[in-house]
Amino acid sequence: MKHLKVDPIKEGTVIDHIPANRALQVINIINPDKEDIVTVGINFSSKKFGRKDIVKIEGRELSPTVVNSIALVAPHANVIIIRDYEVVNKRLVQIPDEIYKSVICGNPKCVSNAEQMDTHFITVSRNPVMLRCHYCERVFHIDELRVE
Amino acid sequence: MKHLKVDPIKEGTVIDHIPANRALQVINIINPDKEDIVTVGINFSSKKFGRKDIVKIEGRELSPTVVNSIALVAPHANVIIIRDYEVVNKRLVQIPDEIYKSVICGNPKCVSNAEQMDTHFITVSRNPVMLRCHYCERVFHIDELRVE
Repeated sequence: MKHLKVDPIKEGTVIDHIPANRALQVINIINPDKEDIVTVGINFSSKKFGRKDIVKIEGRELSPTVVNSIALVAPHANVIIIRDYEVVNKRLVQIPDEIYKSVICGNPKCVSNAEQMDTHFITVSRNPVMLRCHYCERVFHIDELRVE
Repeated sequence: MKHLKVDPIKEGTVIDHIPANRALQVINIINPDKEDIVTVGINFSSKKFGRKDIVKIEGRELSPTVVNSIALVAPHANVIIIRDYEVVNKRLVQIPDEIYKSVICGNPKCVSNAEQMDTHFITVSRNPVMLRCHYCERVFHIDELRVE
């Protein structure tokens, strides 16, 4: 019965297969509106991963930009768009080639930390996720970086 | 069907009637273990309040101290303890007479902000929630204070 703990929704977006304990980071990235009806499941049972998180947002279809930002904290997540209780689109998130804003450089001496500016990273590897800062050129594993 | 969106749990704690958009603050206060199975509903329908948030934690019974800290962000929340699908205890949260740690003083010149120390507030009113800082003696409405 575990997989039925959160009921289906009529319209909206379901983000499934988020690694356990990452749902709140995903919520931060999505930044739902104050009126959005959101359901979050943390540490739910998953056949594939043992444990997983899941996020559902009613009445909102996430844009590709937002979906790709989710990949930074949930690289194997599935994003499912629902209309009238039917799945109309389902795709794996995909880390973009370049990332602006969401990631904070892990190098305290990097100019992007010293000045009010957008960060900029280049994806050098997707498995594991490795990003190079455009400014200080240091390469980081995603777990070394803060994602906002 | 809205009220059935999150299924009942076998054992654990349900925090109901959290004001809309406050569930993530409640989660921060509860600070669940990495293994806890948590379900969060944001902006669910409520007969009483129009909209409400709800939090469920499986297999964990919250302590009175944690429950009372929840009152700071959800003064009318109900805390329900479940065992074997039955409600064994249900009570309204209650703001304690004195509060340590969770609240950050809103006065930037207060000594509690200048030094590494626990904050300390005295509850001067519960409706509306007004707290007096023990150190700088300034009185704040709860909405003027940061709760961590």
